Amino acid sequence: MVNRLISQLGHVEVISPKPEESLLFYRDVLGLEVSGRANQSVYLRGWGEFFHHSLQLTEGPQPAVAHAGWRTEGPQELEETVARLERSGAGIGWRDSEVGHGPAFRYRTPGGHVQEVFWEVERYRPPAELAPLYPNRPQRYVPRGAAVRRIDHVTFNTDDPLRDAHWYRDVLGYRHTETIRFDHVPVVLGAFVSTTPMSHDLGLIRDALDRTGRLSGVPGRSNHIAFWLDQREDVLRACEVYRENGIEVEFGPGRHGVGENFFIYCREPGGMRVELFSNGYMQFAPDVYPFEWQVSKGALNFWSPSQMAPEPFLFEAFPPVPGERGSPPVTHAAAAAH
Amino acid sequence: MVNRLISQLGHVEVISPKPEESLLFYRDVLGLEVSGRANQSVYLRGWGEFFHHSLQLTEGPQPAVAHAGWRTEGPQELEETVARLERSGAGIGWRDSEVGHGPAFRYRTPGGHVQEVFWEVERYRPPAELAPLYPNRPQRYVPRGAAVRRIDHVTFNTDDPLRDAHWYRDVLGYRHTETIRFDHVPVVLGAFVSTTPMSHDLGLIRDALDRTGRLSGVPGRSNHIAFWLDQREDVLRACEVYRENGIEVEFGPGRHGVGENFFIYCREPGGMRVELFSNGYMQFAPDVYPFEWQVSKGALNFWSPSQMAPEPFLFEAFPPVPGERGSPPVTHAAAAAH
Amino acid sequence: MVNRLISQLGHVEVISPKPEESLLFYRDVLGLEVSGRANQSVYLRGWGEFFHHSLQLTEGPQPAVAHAGWRTEGPQELEETVARLERSGAGIGWRDSEVGHGPAFRYRTPGGHVQEVFWEVERYRPPAELAPLYPNRPQRYVPRGAAVRRIDHVTFNTDDPLRDAHWYRDVLGYRHTETIRFDHVPVVLGAFVSTTPMSHDLGLIRDALDRTGRLSGVPGRSNHIAFWLDQREDVLRACEVYRENGIEVEFGPGRHGVGENFFIYCREPGGMRVELFSNGYMQFAPDVYPFEWQVSKGALNFWSPSQMAPEPFLFEAFPPVPGERGSPPVTHAAAAAH
Amino acid sequence: MVNRLISQLGHVEVISPKPEESLLFYRDVLGLEVSGRANQSVYLRGWGEFFHHSLQLTEGPQPAVAHAGWRTEGPQELEETVARLERSGAGIGWRDSEVGHGPAFRYRTPGGHVQEVFWEVERYRPPAELAPLYPNRPQRYVPRGAAVRRIDHVTFNTDDPLRDAHWYRDVLGYRHTETIRFDHVPVVLGAFVSTTPMSHDLGLIRDALDRTGRLSGVPGRSNHIAFWLDQREDVLRACEVYRENGIEVEFGPGRHGVGENFFIYCREPGGMRVELFSNGYMQFAPDVYPFEWQVSKGALNFWSPSQMAPEPFLFEAFPPVPGERGSPPVTHAAAAAH
Repeated sequence: MVNRLISQLGHVEVISPKPEESLLFYRDVLGLEVSGRANQSVYLRGWGEFFHHSLQLTEGPQPAVAHAGWRTEGPQELEETVARLERSGAGIGWRDSEVGHGPAFRYRTPGGHVQEVFWEVERYRPPAELAPLYPNRPQRYVPRGAAVRRIDHVTFNTDDPLRDAHWYRDVLGYRHTETIRFDHVPVVLGAFVSTTPMSHDLGLIRDALDRTGRLSGVPGRSNHIAFWLDQREDVLRACEVYRENGIEVEFGPGRHGVGENFFIYCREPGGMRVELFSNGYMQFAPDVYPFEWQVSKGALNFWSPSQMAPEPFLFEAFPPVPGERGSPPVTHAAAAAH
Repeated sequence: MVNRLISQLGHVEVISPKPEESLLFYRDVLGLEVSGRANQSVYLRGWGEFFHHSLQLTEGPQPAVAHAGWRTEGPQELEETVARLERSGAGIGWRDSEVGHGPAFRYRTPGGHVQEVFWEVERYRPPAELAPLYPNRPQRYVPRGAAVRRIDHVTFNTDDPLRDAHWYRDVLGYRHTETIRFDHVPVVLGAFVSTTPMSHDLGLIRDALDRTGRLSGVPGRSNHIAFWLDQREDVLRACEVYRENGIEVEFGPGRHGVGENFFIYCREPGGMRVELFSNGYMQFAPDVYPFEWQVSKGALNFWSPSQMAPEPFLFEAFPPVPGERGSPPVTHAAAAAH
Repeated sequence: MVNRLISQLGHVEVISPKPEESLLFYRDVLGLEVSGRANQSVYLRGWGEFFHHSLQLTEGPQPAVAHAGWRTEGPQELEETVARLERSGAGIGWRDSEVGHGPAFRYRTPGGHVQEVFWEVERYRPPAELAPLYPNRPQRYVPRGAAVRRIDHVTFNTDDPLRDAHWYRDVLGYRHTETIRFDHVPVVLGAFVSTTPMSHDLGLIRDALDRTGRLSGVPGRSNHIAFWLDQREDVLRACEVYRENGIEVEFGPGRHGVGENFFIYCREPGGMRVELFSNGYMQFAPDVYPFEWQVSKGALNFWSPSQMAPEPFLFEAFPPVPGERGSPPVTHAAAAAH
Repeated sequence: MVNRLISQLGHVEVISPKPEESLLFYRDVLGLEVSGRANQSVYLRGWGEFFHHSLQLTEGPQPAVAHAGWRTEGPQELEETVARLERSGAGIGWRDSEVGHGPAFRYRTPGGHVQEVFWEVERYRPPAELAPLYPNRPQRYVPRGAAVRRIDHVTFNTDDPLRDAHWYRDVLGYRHTETIRFDHVPVVLGAFVSTTPMSHDLGLIRDALDRTGRLSGVPGRSNHIAFWLDQREDVLRACEVYRENGIEVEFGPGRHGVGENFFIYCREPGGMRVELFSNGYMQFAPDVYPFEWQVSKGALNFWSPSQMAPEPFLFEAFPPVPGERGSPPVTHAAAAAH
């Protein structure tokens, strides 16, 4: 009777074709701390994160999420998880210890997303000048840029969000929390699964290229990664930090109906979409899910349901397919001011 | 050497073709208090307002601002103001005391907006159950709906915002605080004037019907009226109150570059656009104005400058002209839930 | 390998010698919804709670927490929990189904606190006028009073907080998250345990009567119950709601170092201490606890560590012992204004 | 008929016996920008201030406010102000242009506070890297430390707050906005005057040394200087910035009844008390003042009226008199963590 296999999203690996500019964004605009460098990667984490890193930023040709890593509840839960993955046919295989964590078992989900599970992890040890005043924090609060606290979730594009949500639920024990359906066609726009009491630490969105719903046909694409801020006011403050750094808000501020989360989205210099995220429900009961949304009820844009979302948010994913915009828009006014 | 003629925006008269529904909006959704009824009008005020009313809601065929009323700094300032208005040729004439205030002098501005100035005013006297705990408040705080504190400003449509701004400055002593110009054509989109240290209590926006800039040719139209909330979080809370009452946010939440104000807009049931408003600079110096914006710098939508504003915000004004939408959009999802 | 027995705090039963006044407080000032009445009890819940009630308010001679109820992760987890309680010697026995939930097993902890565990629960069904717009909510948001969302935690007084924390950890599988020790004497002031990623849903504080540390000798006393609000601004707004209702803030606003939570405390009319609570960390890792505080580091009052807490907060608990104040202070100014 | 002589508080000169440590506080903790140095002074201003400086920090033996400077509405208003000061017998005389402003006329108020009025002022010109994105701002927003926007007010100690308030009103045209009286003795605790629609830019508090009300007998003492933040959440964030820098909150967070302002107080390293300040009413009407408070109604501590204020706030002023604490408390825990 194991009722919890995975304890949290550990890290994501993001590919950037402009690694130096992306690093400036994650470090100086989001406020992440650099905790290591190796090969083509820089490792970063938020001031509230206890482990070595939550973001691996890697140089590459196109913006993408190369993999996501999940930490299990314990060593036995890792064994059990791997057994389940192997039985499901999704397993790729073990990798040796890497920067920041111990051996990890890689797998490919039905939507084509490469991920890994691990238990052993390197605890972050702050240098003296970052020693925390709070014994319950891994380091001192550093008010640089938006000062995001921790990674929150990753949202993948997939040809079938509901199939994937069921897979995460049945194979890996995620809770399937919410589903978004179109009003007039029997198509699922998105589905959400979670290993925590928050609504999701893994989102799944239909990989459509345009309003006709045509699919990209490319597996393993991603929509965005998201970081957490403690208060909605912190997200509004981040809007200001973005603008002062030449970054435009692509979507928001607004509230998703799903999860009740307060959000803004932007595109980092390498092209990847980044969400800042706060508020949202905590649901401790194991048996009230999943909740069913229609798009028209404001699943994506609760306060303005007739304005569903900007088209780029809906139809541009990573890696981009031919014809998609792989680079973020340039705010000329802001750029000129620099 | 009179350096201040007008002390504040006193009231606006809004016409509604659906007065009962509009009253429910202003009273239960915005949270205004009803302070009187006479003829075809209901009078309302926010919990933080010291005078009899700031909103006169009047039944009529089309949404519009029928007039705006301004209070002078004193009785001598009223005399001086009237003398200036008469010299300018804008004067219409005196009206006897009316509900809530003493004799008022009416005038028509170059943009065709009927307004009035007055000095004598009726102080609000709360009933016992609304007696304030704060001696510096006119009544107890009532947390009904969005609980707006006070009227903030009125924004008029006009064929020439800059001409009007100069008129308010030269004839009535308003400060001309900000101007918005298009980037690539020598056209002024908007201008702002103020009788207070806030950026504006009177806005002026070009009365264009579409992206070609074609003017309506109808004088005296209005864009919106605005109410104040003390914190940005109060505006976010109001989004929730709106949605729970079947009201969709038309534009926002966002930040205007002009004035630095945090805003949301909606349409009340009678059709009029209503802004909720918070934050924004206070500028005490008399000699730093006016500030000049280009549209591309985010004058209207600072955090997303390339998304200027939704078209209805830019091109639908009141009273509507043929072809314009005089009624607010219906949030079907919300309506269905009621 | 069960790694999670209990999913959440379900409800607390609070005794009030002034049940009508207490009901007005919980319903109109906190904004809870009444969901039932039976015998000497009224049942209430927050707008964000999915089950029948989280507060049972019962008439009785002195303010106290009569019992707390916890829901397990499932029916097997209930069996396992009961087996462990019986092995530990803490078991009292089964009770039949009661208002809002199925059979519950009662037990008495080492600190003398009577509690119960259950699995079957009645789901809240809103009346039509409270049907939610969010499919993920149990009912419509009702902005009455402080509009608390849900119960958050209960904090008990005990002669040995650390002994109790270890007992909750070892017998019931709570995480032991934080401990507060005095700086200069080897005494534990408080300890905190949790069934969620928040810092605690059960607090334990030393049952001292004064600064000498003399213990009351009365088992099973309680310090406070706490309700959750989504944003710190909601807590500040609640201060205003309190004051307008003649309720004085006893301690706060401030930030506990423990949990990083933003708080205010007051005393409800029956005497019980009530905390409103927001912000605070979420800690998903199972292996970073417990964190160790010294009082001087700001465990209770992080922003003003040399002002530890007001004496009533530290030395008045419920039920009161002879010489303790069982009734809340009267705010004469506020009372006079009513 | 001049109705407004003074437009705003221009600057205060603060004496510090620890000028280097005080500079670190004002620059790195509050986030002010250094705009000049001359003789024993460093000049600073907030990111939202248009003039050369608002704070002159000067080395000296004891914490104190050496003088406050006020800008008039224009050159004629300066002449009129000086004529009134000379008639009142308060005039000291003209001083030549100084760093940041033109000729200033100095005077000594009945409470013994040396101040000056001036019109000509040096506009701040940002270096290229601080060029603003907002045309209505003097420089780019710099999120260093608490990032205070501008100076807000100065509060003086005096043997007779009401006498002084009347003097500011009658001689200099300030509005007298609020008065605080003790409940049971005919003594005024404080009075507030303003040149803006906010409740005060100059506070006056009785110069008592202890609860007996014994006066210090030393004229010209000061209680604190205050800086503005745009949102209450910014003040809460500043609490965190303070704590991380070893600064303890002396009083607050809380809400003054007077002005409705949200506040925290601390002591900077040189000893001076510094308030951070947000929220509060704007009152545009010239004829609703003054408002009368009793201490028991929460004039100083609205949410906890029976906890009036900490004793140091009430009884320690600057320069200190023998027996008063001239230095701020040391937060040992915080200091040890550095």
